[in-house]
Formats: sequence, structure tokens, C-alpha cells
Amino acid sequence: METGQILSMNGGCGEESYAKNSHAQNAYLLRTIPVLHAALLDFCTKKLPAIVAIADLGCSSGPNTLFAISQSMSIIHDTCRQIGCSPPQFSVFLNDLPSNDFNTVFKSLPQFQKRMMEENGQDFGPCYIAGVPGSFYGRLFPAKSLHFVQSSTSLHWLSQVPLELSDCSDKAMVNKGKIYISRTSPPRVVEAYLSQFRRDFCSFLRLRSEEIAPGGHMVLTFRGRRMPDPFPDESCLLWDYLGLAFQDLVSQGLIEEEKLDSYNTPYYEPYVEDVRAEIEREGSFTLDRLEIIVAPWDGVNGGQRYDRRKTAEMMAKAMRAVNESMITSHFGDQILDSLFERFIDIMARDTKEVEHPSLVVSLIRKS
Amino acid sequence: METGQILSMNGGCGEESYAKNSHAQNAYLLRTIPVLHAALLDFCTKKLPAIVAIADLGCSSGPNTLFAISQSMSIIHDTCRQIGCSPPQFSVFLNDLPSNDFNTVFKSLPQFQKRMMEENGQDFGPCYIAGVPGSFYGRLFPAKSLHFVQSSTSLHWLSQVPLELSDCSDKAMVNKGKIYISRTSPPRVVEAYLSQFRRDFCSFLRLRSEEIAPGGHMVLTFRGRRMPDPFPDESCLLWDYLGLAFQDLVSQGLIEEEKLDSYNTPYYEPYVEDVRAEIEREGSFTLDRLEIIVAPWDGVNGGQRYDRRKTAEMMAKAMRAVNESMITSHFGDQILDSLFERFIDIMARDTKEVEHPSLVVSLIRKS
Repeated sequence: METGQILSMNGGCGEESYAKNSHAQNAYLLRTIPVLHAALLDFCTKKLPAIVAIADLGCSSGPNTLFAISQSMSIIHDTCRQIGCSPPQFSVFLNDLPSNDFNTVFKSLPQFQKRMMEENGQDFGPCYIAGVPGSFYGRLFPAKSLHFVQSSTSLHWLSQVPLELSDCSDKAMVNKGKIYISRTSPPRVVEAYLSQFRRDFCSFLRLRSEEIAPGGHMVLTFRGRRMPDPFPDESCLLWDYLGLAFQDLVSQGLIEEEKLDSYNTPYYEPYVEDVRAEIEREGSFTLDRLEIIVAPWDGVNGGQRYDRRKTAEMMAKAMRAVNESMITSHFGDQILDSLFERFIDIMARDTKEVEHPSLVVSLIRKS
Repeated sequence: METGQILSMNGGCGEESYAKNSHAQNAYLLRTIPVLHAALLDFCTKKLPAIVAIADLGCSSGPNTLFAISQSMSIIHDTCRQIGCSPPQFSVFLNDLPSNDFNTVFKSLPQFQKRMMEENGQDFGPCYIAGVPGSFYGRLFPAKSLHFVQSSTSLHWLSQVPLELSDCSDKAMVNKGKIYISRTSPPRVVEAYLSQFRRDFCSFLRLRSEEIAPGGHMVLTFRGRRMPDPFPDESCLLWDYLGLAFQDLVSQGLIEEEKLDSYNTPYYEPYVEDVRAEIEREGSFTLDRLEIIVAPWDGVNGGQRYDRRKTAEMMAKAMRAVNESMITSHFGDQILDSLFERFIDIMARDTKEVEHPSLVVSLIRKS
């Protein structure tokens, strides 16, 4: 099944919402700013169009949704003033899957527009904002219509779980008791995930190469690996905890073993060199910068210091806000509370702490 | 207060939703098709851009949302095939207030795109769809970025209740026991509504004249009057029923008289010749066609024949789906059920039947 049919960050602004449980994603965003800034400075040295079209792919719904966009517009606006050319207008496209809670985003826009004027001065904008629902694994925009594309904490989502994994009769493809690749995963499962990533990432680059005007920029931030080992704890630990929580529900008879065996997450953290290789192979973009940024173990706490159990509770909320739609689609919503209670217990009694690395990729569309 | 802060059609797909209670609006849409068709034929005789940008202003959420847009795209596609030129791609912008239920619209888009391909053939599109939240009494799009604009059953909403009406100390401006202009309204109330319409409509035309490329078309359908009398029953009867229902709540002590006196609806049905005069005065558009279409008294029943009471029930649902957000904003939501029960009783025991006229205005942006 396509990820677009099952994945959506929890909507609204309530306790279970993604909006309230996306501190970790904000930590990545903050660390992306220097690369974004450098890309935008380079972008501004070229002759800017009168209206700069910026897209944010995988904008979600919450405090992070407008953060990167607002940063980009402010940097462009400031830079133009500094170099003495008149600031451009902006056409902003906020993209996410059709199931994203765009309503909450849209309701916040009048206030956002007001704040941008206050912060950047009366010569800011105008800034025309539109929502674009659809998967970024399909075409979203007319050809050569975009000048700057950014995407944060989204591209680690695959377009689908590798199809081979749904064939439970093939024992070599059963990811026993796990929901993401893990040290216990059969080699062919690991290969299937890597192949799916390659297809998806290549397709993403090809699609964007059609939509981005020559010389246009793209800055992508997504979870990835700094080591070739496909199972480092820093990639797999949290998914292993969640897998263990699922196994507990199986042993309690709350879900069937086969049901768990046929559930895998359409997610992948690629090795940084694989990313570099795919960009070269696809060939439409010049790789301007590729950096690894690292969010702390407890980035989920939003800068607060908490003990292990409280951190586990925060992590459970963050994992739930992201995974709930997919889990519900496969298992129903009855198990959610038990599952994440188990997750908290499992994580709280372990002692491992890992950093959370992400890759920041800055690309320029070849002319 | 700006209409954008208080008006939204009831969202979702439930019994109270606008989606389920917009049969009457659909009746207007159907009657608009011939004018839309003529405008599009004329549009297609010019050299079409490779990507035709179409905007629907006030798209709401429901079965009508994509109807006019789908008609327009199909007509353009068919016409191009007939005259032997290659059909264009489409860039579609669905606009409504930020409080509109865009989520429901967006979730229906994958199915909509599929249906458009099936109905129009594999050479249809691609069609890029975006949602644009904001009031059409402000700028929504970059300059000269649109080729075809349509708006159905939206432009009778004013940008605000005439400001003069909120001054309850001025007796000449109190619209006693009424929520829209009526035979009992003081002359200055009627004048204030007319002035507000003129300002709003002129502003709407000026804003669109900036956004529509020279030679671009605009087809607008909205409630209006075919006679100069400002209070014909066909404009005022339903608002009078609702005013009477409010008065009943006052006499039952459920709402205060002053509260009712300070509530007026940001709505206006202009006289057809006033519309013509404003278009000429504003000057950016050539008036191609101006027609009056009429929906039957019981258009709200969606083609079914019902007795007076059932028709009143259907009308109450339709009126509620449209007015609930504004009534709640002023009175709270406690009175809604009682109010519309009273509305049904009042309408059911009356015998008057009126047609519901609308104006269809086809305009071309001067070069």
C-alpha cells in the first residue's frame, strides 16, 4: 500500500498531536539553518525573479510547519536589502500528503503573514501562500515553476513498504517480530529496504529536477546513517523498542503473530555515501553540500532535562504522533494505548542513549 | 468584524455539514454551465498558454467544490481536441477562507484526479491542484498569474457587516428584530448595505484585475435581484423567517433584544443594474454577458418533491450549514437547535413561495 494512504502526522493541537510532539524535528530544523543560510546566500547572488517560488515538501502541521519557510523568506529579504537590490515577492507552496491537517496550518496563516510583516518590515512581500496536497513521489508542480525547495524530516519516509516484504509465504522476507530493519532482519529484508530507498530517492530527484528551474536550489534534511553498518543503534534502537512492545502484545494475545510479521514501516535511514552516490547517478543536481547533523538523545524533550522514564514518555508521544495512522490502518486503534505503555516501560528500563543523526543535502539544479 | 473571522460553511460530511446541505447551490451551478461554456469557448479561440491557471474563489467543501472546476477543465480539453490543438496542462487553485474545511477537499483529490483521467482520456492534464486560503477581498495570487477565474454562490458575502450598523446608539441604524435588510429596515440601513456592496465589489474587481492576465476570463455567479425594489420577497423572505425565529427566542428570554439588534448578516443581493454599473465604473473588465438565472423555491430539496414542512426542514438545514459559524460567533451555540426549530415552524405555517434568482456575470480582462 502506498505510504500516502496510511501515513499522516496526528492532526490538531491536542496532547496527542504532532504539533505538540515534534520537538525533536524542531531540533533538526535549527541545526539545518546554517546550510539553508549558505544555500540562500548563493541563491541571492544570482539574478532573482520578481516572484521567488519556494516549496516546503512534507510541511506537516504544527510549529515547525512555517519555521523553515519563514527563515528562508527572511534570509532572502535581508540579503537583498544588504546587497541593495529590491526584495522579491514570494509564492510559497506548503506540500504534504492529502491526509495532513492543512486546516490547522491554514487557520494560522493570517497571524503568520502579520508576524512576517512586523519582523521584516513593511517592504516585505507580498507573500502568496498555497497548500499543495499530494505525495512528493509524484509530480506536484508545473515544470520549472520552483526556485527554492526545502524539505525537513520527511524524506526518510519511503513511498511504500518494499513490496517483497508483504509476501509472508517467503520465509526469507519475514522480518520476524520487528517493524523496521534490525540486527535480526534477514539479509534480503535489508536489501529490499535499500532498493526501495534507491528507487524512491532517485524518483524524488528526477521529479524535482523537472519542477525546479535551472540554477534553483534544494535543501533536504532527513534521518540518515553516518556509518555503513545498516543496523547502528542510533538508527534502530527506537524501532527495536517499538518492535519489542509489539511482541509483548503478541505474547499477551492482543495481536496475532502473523499480523505483526506482516507489518513493516515505510521508513529508511540511508547511509550518507549511498545518498551521495544516488545524487551523482541521477545526475540532475550538483551536490553543493552534504553535512551530518546530530540531535541529542533527549531532543524530544524540547530542551528540558528529564529522567529516563519521563524521556521515554515524551518519546512515546513523539513516536505515536508519527506512527499512529499507520499502526491504526494495520491493527486498528484498540491496541494503541497498551502498545505505547509497553514502549515506555521497555525504553525506561533500558539504559542505552544514542544520538540521532540526520543528513543535510544542499543541491543546485544543473542548467 | 471581518467576515473571514466568522464565516465558514459547516465542515465535514455529517448531517449538519454544508457538503450534505448544498443542493440549492448545486442548482445554481448547473444553470451557470451555459455561460461558463460560452466563456470557455471564447477563451479557447485565443492562443492558450501551455499551462492554463484556473482559480475557483469560494470553493467551500462538498460535492460542489470541484464541480465547476471539473466542468471547465473538461470543456477546455474537449474544445482543444475539437479544434485540433494539443490540450493544455492545468494549474488549479481552490480558494476559500482559512476556516474552510480544506482537509475534506484535499482527501478527495486523488479520487478526483483519477476520475478526470478516466472521463477525459489519457491525454488529460496533468492537473496541479493547490488550496489557497484567504479572503477574496484581499490579494490572493501573484500579478497576471491567472487565466480563468470562476466563483459560484460566494460573492453575495460582504467583506463585513456595514460598520455603521454596529453603532447601536444611533437609532437610525438599528435593524430592529431583523438580521438582513427587510421592509422594516430604516432607509440608512439599506443604504449602508448598498454602500458596503459597492465598496466590496469594486475592490474584488480591482484585485482580480491585478491577478488575471490580459484577455483572461472571469465568470461569477451570486445571488442578486432582478428588480430595483431592495426588499423583494425573493431576496428577503428566508432572512425574514430567520429574523422571526430570533424574535421568538427574544420573547422566550433565550437571547437579549440588544443582542439581536446588534446582529446583522454580512450578505447582500445586489440589483442587476447596480452590478453592471459597478463593472463599468471600475473599468478593468469588459462585460461579456450578464444573465439572470433562477433556482426553484424547493431547489434545496435536490430535485425531490416534498411537502411544505419537509421543505422547511431542508431549508433550515441549508440555512444552518451556511449561518451556523456566524450565529455561534455572536450568540454562542446554545440557541442553534431552538432557533432552527422555530425557523421550521415559521416557514412551515406560511404559504409564500418565491424563486431564488442569481446573477451570472461573464467578464474579460481588458488588454
